[in-house]
Amino acid sequence: VESVRKGGLRVNLVGQAQALEQELARLRYTFRENHSEPLGITDTPEFLAMEESPSAILREKPRASVRLACELVAQGKAGAVVSAGHSGALMIAGKHLLGTLPGVDRPAIATPLPSRRGVCLLLDSGANVDCKPGYLLQFARMGRIYARVVLGCESPRVALLSNGSEPGKGNELIRQVYPLMERQIEGFIGNLEPGDLFRGRADVIVCDGFVGNMVLKTAEATGSQLRRYFRDAGGRSPLSWIGTRLMGNMFFQMLRHTDRSEIGGSMLLGLKGVAVVAHGSSNARAMRNAIEMAQRCAASNLMEALDEAFAGEV
Amino acid sequence: VESVRKGGLRVNLVGQAQALEQELARLRYTFRENHSEPLGITDTPEFLAMEESPSAILREKPRASVRLACELVAQGKAGAVVSAGHSGALMIAGKHLLGTLPGVDRPAIATPLPSRRGVCLLLDSGANVDCKPGYLLQFARMGRIYARVVLGCESPRVALLSNGSEPGKGNELIRQVYPLMERQIEGFIGNLEPGDLFRGRADVIVCDGFVGNMVLKTAEATGSQLRRYFRDAGGRSPLSWIGTRLMGNMFFQMLRHTDRSEIGGSMLLGLKGVAVVAHGSSNARAMRNAIEMAQRCAASNLMEALDEAFAGEV
Repeated sequence: VESVRKGGLRVNLVGQAQALEQELARLRYTFRENHSEPLGITDTPEFLAMEESPSAILREKPRASVRLACELVAQGKAGAVVSAGHSGALMIAGKHLLGTLPGVDRPAIATPLPSRRGVCLLLDSGANVDCKPGYLLQFARMGRIYARVVLGCESPRVALLSNGSEPGKGNELIRQVYPLMERQIEGFIGNLEPGDLFRGRADVIVCDGFVGNMVLKTAEATGSQLRRYFRDAGGRSPLSWIGTRLMGNMFFQMLRHTDRSEIGGSMLLGLKGVAVVAHGSSNARAMRNAIEMAQRCAASNLMEALDEAFAGEV
Repeated sequence: VESVRKGGLRVNLVGQAQALEQELARLRYTFRENHSEPLGITDTPEFLAMEESPSAILREKPRASVRLACELVAQGKAGAVVSAGHSGALMIAGKHLLGTLPGVDRPAIATPLPSRRGVCLLLDSGANVDCKPGYLLQFARMGRIYARVVLGCESPRVALLSNGSEPGKGNELIRQVYPLMERQIEGFIGNLEPGDLFRGRADVIVCDGFVGNMVLKTAEATGSQLRRYFRDAGGRSPLSWIGTRLMGNMFFQMLRHTDRSEIGGSMLLGLKGVAVVAHGSSNARAMRNAIEMAQRCAASNLMEALDEAFAGEV
């Protein structure tokens, strides 16, 4: 609703119409009586619960909301799809209904991270738990294009996420892909340690989806542990109570600065269409950021640039 | 010096005597004139710099400080070795001079992490970047014994670190080892997500050394990013300046609570002797914690319990 009211976007809500209408009424949203109505509803009773196997959407649930939303993009009726549901299901629906870019073996989840110099892109942050060196090379190339087109970074620096910055560091996968990156990836600057993750030393950080997911979730867990400690500490002494009140806003501002939901969602990079996955615990603000990020990607020439870059390969 | 003065321990400093004596003079440490002198110095000019290959200590540097320190333990002249230098070099020196426990293929770095219910043990946190399922089973068994003997946990709960808590989650290694853990490891509770890392749901958390190292370093990087932000924010407005002062101590207390250096060092578990690696950026407090942790391990029957548990295997 905020994206429509304040962001001026057109949004189609795909899901159980009755529940959506109730929620819209609660937000005092009134539909206009003409063709310029920016908010639409596509009714479907089916959806995929978090504990279900994502592949269920292919056979058992042909009208799952995530499928219908991808179909709208495939049919050109929507510019992008955004989901805060099961990211695996969005990936499967995206592959099935939008297709994978020619020359890309595996689409990756590309997550913008807050860094000292703005934003850097971490990929794969969860789609492919087991990767071959060739996948990581493709992630690097897609990431560079995203950084250039969407983040406005003229010559993106690409790094491999590893346990040390020296060339020989890393597990077998990283050691195998390192020399290939050196030869094939423009702007490759070598290995990057997690200690430098937020220091703005690289614009695109490449890793397999298992490691990327662990790193993201660890950063989130550390942040929320500190937040909890802060909240609990406010009750301990009168001085720290006053301190917490005075600091309160600043502290939450700080957490916001270090919270990726403020930046938007993660793009499923490698699909033939814009698909953005938002965090499952997103609030309205995070959803609006994800929707606006999807809009920015759809309005840019990201898809054309990716198409062009990989076209030579096929 | 604090470990000697306040902790009542006997400490032998292995390194360049002249540099050590200068430092001791700066700290106004005066040697006693009798046999009860608790602080000794073993002079050696050789040491391994961080950028050198750790295997250099085997041939080129037979008198490297880390080697001599391990020799003192091997000869029974010291109960434990503590190093804040190159952890790889301590591992190699430990394997070479102390030996690996029979039945253990690869010693692991076992790092105590602060958690809501006290402390949990993460291993391997950096020694073995490429692991076979059998290694992880051994890590789990060694970790359980450590948790029981050193952390005083009666029936330790063991978990695999994975990208999701459901049984099928994880990369190939985790999926392979999961059913083996179910059959062979007492107290196995399944997969644990990084989101639950600090929630005290498990006492022993098992992963390969690449992932463990990434997770540890990410948690540290997130913590220090928040600290930096907090420090910078103090100068922004009069109210937040006052807030920062009032909160200051509490905030550093919070960081201390979430800072593993406060807990001590990481044990190289699987060697025939107590070897503890402290963080390279340790301050005096962190070093004292690491030294006291090493003393606790040496004074416990950890080595006997490990020996006994793995003796049946060989």
